[in-house]
Amino acid sequence: MLRRMTFQEQRLAEGFLFTDLYQLTMAQLYFRTGMAGTRAQFDHFFRAYPNYGDHQAGFCVTAGLAWLLDWMREARVTDDDLAVLRSLTGRTGARLFGDDFLGWLKVHGTFESLTLRAVPEGRVVHPGVPLTVVEGPLIMAQVLETALLAQLNYQTLIATKAARVKDSARGGVVIEMGVRRAHDRGANAGTRAALIGGADFTSNTGMSHVLGFQPRGTHAHSMVQAFVALGLGELEAFRAYAETYPDECLLLVDTIDTLHSGVPNAITVFEELRRRGHEPVGIRLDSGDLAYLSIQAAKQLNEACFPDTTITLSSNLDELVIWQILTQITQEAPTYGLEPDALIRRLTYGVGTRLITSEGDTALGGVYKLVAIQKEGTWRPAIKLSDSRDKVPNPGSKRAWRVYDARHHATADLLSTPEETPRAGERLRLYHPSDPARHRTLPAHEVSRVEPLLTTILDEGRLVYDLPDITAMRELRERDVAALNTGVRRLVNPHIYHVSLSSGLWTLKQDLIHSVMNGTHNGI
Amino acid sequence: MLRRMTFQEQRLAEGFLFTDLYQLTMAQLYFRTGMAGTRAQFDHFFRAYPNYGDHQAGFCVTAGLAWLLDWMREARVTDDDLAVLRSLTGRTGARLFGDDFLGWLKVHGTFESLTLRAVPEGRVVHPGVPLTVVEGPLIMAQVLETALLAQLNYQTLIATKAARVKDSARGGVVIEMGVRRAHDRGANAGTRAALIGGADFTSNTGMSHVLGFQPRGTHAHSMVQAFVALGLGELEAFRAYAETYPDECLLLVDTIDTLHSGVPNAITVFEELRRRGHEPVGIRLDSGDLAYLSIQAAKQLNEACFPDTTITLSSNLDELVIWQILTQITQEAPTYGLEPDALIRRLTYGVGTRLITSEGDTALGGVYKLVAIQKEGTWRPAIKLSDSRDKVPNPGSKRAWRVYDARHHATADLLSTPEETPRAGERLRLYHPSDPARHRTLPAHEVSRVEPLLTTILDEGRLVYDLPDITAMRELRERDVAALNTGVRRLVNPHIYHVSLSSGLWTLKQDLIHSVMNGTHNGI
Repeated sequence: MLRRMTFQEQRLAEGFLFTDLYQLTMAQLYFRTGMAGTRAQFDHFFRAYPNYGDHQAGFCVTAGLAWLLDWMREARVTDDDLAVLRSLTGRTGARLFGDDFLGWLKVHGTFESLTLRAVPEGRVVHPGVPLTVVEGPLIMAQVLETALLAQLNYQTLIATKAARVKDSARGGVVIEMGVRRAHDRGANAGTRAALIGGADFTSNTGMSHVLGFQPRGTHAHSMVQAFVALGLGELEAFRAYAETYPDECLLLVDTIDTLHSGVPNAITVFEELRRRGHEPVGIRLDSGDLAYLSIQAAKQLNEACFPDTTITLSSNLDELVIWQILTQITQEAPTYGLEPDALIRRLTYGVGTRLITSEGDTALGGVYKLVAIQKEGTWRPAIKLSDSRDKVPNPGSKRAWRVYDARHHATADLLSTPEETPRAGERLRLYHPSDPARHRTLPAHEVSRVEPLLTTILDEGRLVYDLPDITAMRELRERDVAALNTGVRRLVNPHIYHVSLSSGLWTLKQDLIHSVMNGTHNGI
Repeated sequence: MLRRMTFQEQRLAEGFLFTDLYQLTMAQLYFRTGMAGTRAQFDHFFRAYPNYGDHQAGFCVTAGLAWLLDWMREARVTDDDLAVLRSLTGRTGARLFGDDFLGWLKVHGTFESLTLRAVPEGRVVHPGVPLTVVEGPLIMAQVLETALLAQLNYQTLIATKAARVKDSARGGVVIEMGVRRAHDRGANAGTRAALIGGADFTSNTGMSHVLGFQPRGTHAHSMVQAFVALGLGELEAFRAYAETYPDECLLLVDTIDTLHSGVPNAITVFEELRRRGHEPVGIRLDSGDLAYLSIQAAKQLNEACFPDTTITLSSNLDELVIWQILTQITQEAPTYGLEPDALIRRLTYGVGTRLITSEGDTALGGVYKLVAIQKEGTWRPAIKLSDSRDKVPNPGSKRAWRVYDARHHATADLLSTPEETPRAGERLRLYHPSDPARHRTLPAHEVSRVEPLLTTILDEGRLVYDLPDITAMRELRERDVAALNTGVRRLVNPHIYHVSLSSGLWTLKQDLIHSVMNGTHNGI
């Protein structure tokens, strides 16, 4: 029988060997060519915001760092890993990895040799800005790539989507409930990222507990179906629920007919509950025209003297659907004698598939690029030219800054060389990353604050940073989102936030492009 | 410090509590209302093929079952799980779960009580056909829902995408290499599904080994960049690679300039290799116009007497991009004096992000619906009405059949009651699942074979099925894909495959809809 994985196999598939083979073939090459002691720097960044098709993100929210750090600590190469590598063969049947390299790896195959700077989780981030900077021995810094990207790309993608959903919900409670449509056990990382980015709660029971939150959930259609099939009916199902959970009575009302069966039956049960001294929580709508149904359900609830019970909406929600529902409620509620804002305040949002899979754009294009390598104690910047000038990464070791304007809004992110320190109250020159014709000057009075974005997290493997909890990450996110211009926060066609280069970095980049291009022409 | 998860926490988040809370609140309600002994049946099926936007699947490929079975065996409730449930509280601070229910769960909280029938992994499947049928105690059959869907939905989604990619590659070798853009550790499930559905190899080192395949991979741009930054250049990087891997020499040629640097340097190194008695493997192109570049690269390689070296293509490939590349090669290669088919035969495809995230449609809409419940020893069919007649699930216990026509092509899937046994050589009446006006009759000579699709896998928890290995699953997939009409296999706008009901099931469904609707009108 083919088993899923034994425990040993799961450790294998999620540990050091959770990587693309070419990281290891390159590692052996570096070892064989005498570069085992060479130090290198890699930048992790994304090139473009998620584009969901008919809508696009104007900012991202970082997430995943704490899990990456734990992975790095635990994913030291094991004897099992080495045995796998020893078993790999090439076309001729000869072993791919030699005992020389595997012997080296047994001693040095740990990520604890690396220094890591990063933008903390929960922060708003933009394209081209290094989110993570890894420095250390070339081999292990290179091998880290795959696992780093798999973990940081996905969580950043989902935290970003969650921030958009939360924004569209105008502060309403958002519950993540996408496990069943997530990508297998990636669900747990998705739940975590959603809680950092904007979800208030999750239905994911185990993960919610691990992260310190009470999970949320009530009942599904199947409960009502079961009662109906047993000849008991929806009302009896609701009564059973109220009996079992008198203080948590939230009823799903669309199994049979929302307005003619579900809501009236819920009201009957709510009245019985109230007579017994309990206040009901509310109802959930999971199909149909959610704007229309929430207005009509609110009307019935109000008339029955339940003006405060919540109305939870679910069914393929995302930021655009929520926006559309709230727009429709604002327009239509008054024609039914309802105050739209009062209705909107009682809404809660259950968001599933479209959040946990980032529907429309399912992968953040985060990359991990070599930016510098040491030779005889001196850092030499590395660059990769490509067809498109836009895609040439910014070379060398660098710093990242956020510049705030006179209104204390974030106005630009600025990348500089390590030697440059832009300061508040000083005139700043900002260069477009690829177009020499585009640069601008911020006058001194428009520079109210210049904030460094990267923090040293690991110093040669030693954790030198107090990792915050999810609540603190959420506060960072709320603060950063609030500091964005509203145009950047637009759900559709957002205003472009500027990421610029300092004059020092701009000059270095141009010089390097020219020298490599000249080198090419000379036959490198 | 917030740690990713301790081992104990990971087990917690991936075990019994890898579920939506409402499964457990419903479970307690069933326990409290005396339904702990009630038996139920649930069908798992999807309602629509993945729609990627500008293209759509005309069939799916099942995957994920073996991992689900292992999860079911291992995810028995533990004392840790019970402690978590004991700690959950509601709005008033009171405990959500009582000791009565938790005591029951401690004894009965195992999925080993369930009987499971399923369509084996690797088979072609269609909307509305039950892929998995779960029968057993209502509580545990209900609690299984979330984990079953998370595991089967994702792997089926990816196996489907992989089958399309393999079809578009006209049999060329496909290598899965998407880990870095996958959804965290969901990557490993995605790799497995890709290997079942159509990928020949993967770069995912650990998972490849666990599944019994040699992983694939060579080097990245960063290797060439490192050599350039150290003042050595691309040629020296290629020489180092050939030195380290003389029999596996596959060189990535687009770091500097594909046609003016990469390919000429690769040829220099290939010639040196050949003089030393080794044949090179080939080159990889990872940017630019892959059709044009592969033609020009093939021309240079041919002229240098390397007419057989492979050309691996990568960079955002999916089934449409591959189709477009091959179409362009077919049209353009002759104008450069190349035979298109010879070029296409030497191509290999590295497929990453768009395969492992199923770009365009990131979640299979698989659902898990109550279809029957026992009362006093008799099965009572359950149904859920909804706004759309199309979405009413097929009620009751049922069988699923595949009907083959005179040319031995699959012509329809047929759902029937357990009492019906359609046979080859008999006239078959096929009813549209929702539209009474649409039915057709297959004459006896058009029914060459009627194959049951569901196999009993677990009999009250006991495994009664020999689970095949990945190679056997691939053979099933190849056989099933070959049995489809070519119209159904079209990458864009595929012909609709028919899933029909037998007259017995059609009658049951209509009767049940009417009785529930009448019941509603009577105030249920």
